[in-house]
Amino acid sequence: MTTRFSFSLLATDGAARLGRIDTPRGQIRTPAFMPVGTAATVKAMRPESVAETGADILLGNTYHLMLRPGAERIARLGGLHRFMNWDRPILTDSGGFQVMSLAELRKLTEKGVTFRSHIDGARHELTPERSMEIQRLLGSDIVMAFDECPALPADRRRIEESMRLSMRWAARSREAFGDRPGHALFGIQQGGLERDLRAESAAALKEIGFDGYAVGGLAVGEGQAAMFGVLDHAPAMLPADRPRYLMGVGKPDDIVGAVKRGIDMMDCVLPTRSGRTGQAFTRRGAVNIKNARHQEDPRPLDADCGCPACRDYSRAYLHHLFRAGEILSAMLLTWHNLHYFQELMAGMREAIAAGRFAAWEAEFHRMRALGDIEPL
Amino acid sequence: MTTRFSFSLLATDGAARLGRIDTPRGQIRTPAFMPVGTAATVKAMRPESVAETGADILLGNTYHLMLRPGAERIARLGGLHRFMNWDRPILTDSGGFQVMSLAELRKLTEKGVTFRSHIDGARHELTPERSMEIQRLLGSDIVMAFDECPALPADRRRIEESMRLSMRWAARSREAFGDRPGHALFGIQQGGLERDLRAESAAALKEIGFDGYAVGGLAVGEGQAAMFGVLDHAPAMLPADRPRYLMGVGKPDDIVGAVKRGIDMMDCVLPTRSGRTGQAFTRRGAVNIKNARHQEDPRPLDADCGCPACRDYSRAYLHHLFRAGEILSAMLLTWHNLHYFQELMAGMREAIAAGRFAAWEAEFHRMRALGDIEPL
Repeated sequence: MTTRFSFSLLATDGAARLGRIDTPRGQIRTPAFMPVGTAATVKAMRPESVAETGADILLGNTYHLMLRPGAERIARLGGLHRFMNWDRPILTDSGGFQVMSLAELRKLTEKGVTFRSHIDGARHELTPERSMEIQRLLGSDIVMAFDECPALPADRRRIEESMRLSMRWAARSREAFGDRPGHALFGIQQGGLERDLRAESAAALKEIGFDGYAVGGLAVGEGQAAMFGVLDHAPAMLPADRPRYLMGVGKPDDIVGAVKRGIDMMDCVLPTRSGRTGQAFTRRGAVNIKNARHQEDPRPLDADCGCPACRDYSRAYLHHLFRAGEILSAMLLTWHNLHYFQELMAGMREAIAAGRFAAWEAEFHRMRALGDIEPL
Repeated sequence: MTTRFSFSLLATDGAARLGRIDTPRGQIRTPAFMPVGTAATVKAMRPESVAETGADILLGNTYHLMLRPGAERIARLGGLHRFMNWDRPILTDSGGFQVMSLAELRKLTEKGVTFRSHIDGARHELTPERSMEIQRLLGSDIVMAFDECPALPADRRRIEESMRLSMRWAARSREAFGDRPGHALFGIQQGGLERDLRAESAAALKEIGFDGYAVGGLAVGEGQAAMFGVLDHAPAMLPADRPRYLMGVGKPDDIVGAVKRGIDMMDCVLPTRSGRTGQAFTRRGAVNIKNARHQEDPRPLDADCGCPACRDYSRAYLHHLFRAGEILSAMLLTWHNLHYFQELMAGMREAIAAGRFAAWEAEFHRMRALGDIEPL
């Protein structure tokens, strides 16, 4: 097992990349999808089940964890890995994005952000330095630079000012992170949909120097076409020998489009959140299990899926569980969705390795166009 | 594997009995605790996890299942075992008790009960004949006779009339059940706290003839002392060569006291329901995980317990999950509680086999008297 963090680019197919990240806590096969473990738990899943779906790495949320149970407390309890019983790599976000979307009475200055907790109203401050400290206390393997980004659409001036502030914060994050062998610090490119601002941001980050680079500020309201428009040029602005992470993405077709455009890592609450609201993702598109047409359907959600929900249960049963408000409904559908997302990633990795990503992608879209199986 | 239902009494120690029930779906080691799978799921557990805790048999609720998803629907989907992915034995109650406690606008006649569903207000009827039909449609291995019982305290006349009605319904249940090799029908003794009525009920049931006998009408408000008072004489009124089932019991000390008095089978929602409200059962008594004293306690709930909650997590983590309203809290605490209840039964079975039940019981009470471990 390595004691260092490193990225190996193993193959490319067009802009799509097959790679491997080595860390002291294990390997991450890329393109990688990271399930989100917001409050030190991937909701409705035991961590051994998350590993069974094929996940190599989880994402933890600095904002949620700093508020409850608190970073210092987690540190005293041996760090986030031990706290939540997950010994593989963990990436933590910086807290910046979630402060902006969840916290109350936030105030942004050059120094950082002050805000009130959405849980108990307590005052908190997040700065690049405090974000680095919290992520160190959590024991995160991949630490994200502290940044800020506007929801889109936003005017160019707002995007430009925000990006430049984030670049100054990126430098302070790098300084505060220091030298921590085995742990990585990722910078985050900003610039909205403006190509020149993306280029300026990428240059600033490269000048500072990071172990990996995220494309930030997307999946914030701009739509898929605009996002793909940015991804057509933004990843190439970042160093080819470092992993590229697209934050907060996405739906299966977003993910496929992002990988096609050179993205190596992604995260999203979609598979877990949808699992709790009765939406299942399958090769043939999304299925709403609460729909009455499933109520007496003895067939599995997806006959070709090997997850426990599909292997052991009928649509009729899953429908019943959801209607009855049973916890097992969230457990099984979350498992299915995470399994599907990981199979999607595995399929793309295999296709890139074989140099047949275009054919794989065509088949992906063909299956989705078929739509869900007909009612019996 | 047998094709018949049978009970073997293997050892006795005082009134306590060690036994084995053989069914075509597998063996049930007695004394047995049956987790409750109300709506075709043991809440917050996958069935393979329920089996891992050591459960040989589950209880299903006729009342809940007839309302949603419906007995005919479950039958068309292949029966309850297949529907919920549990291939070991299932006992179903008759629906009588839950109609009386949950349904709206109920009307009791000699024929049976009419009522409105608490879910959607739809009109339903339950009679001994319909209860037998529903339990057959579900595919239940152990079917309970349809009965009725008053909450205690109740006056003697009400208890007597109710018991006699239940005995007439027991005869109709026996008639309607017919001959179903491999499936068992249990009669239910009633009579409240009145010894002579218990004797009359037992005689009536024996005259009809059942594969097993339940002590019913207890755990309905009478308190432990009164319940044990009945259990001091009621089980001995029932045939020694048939299993004796105490319905709806109970807390760990209720269970131990019942086994001591000759009970072979029990069921209760306590371990599962408590698991969702933050209460854990341990050798040293109940622990409320939501209590602030656990918030930084790195120790497991019970260092001597082998369940996943105790093996993999700290009290601090379990406390955090409960406070954050996480589904994993219910999953882990339910698992722990079911594990504890099954360990309790295994301990008693071992003690009876060795002829040292009294010593085992003394140790059980000694550990509980110690109370939970001290805060750090």
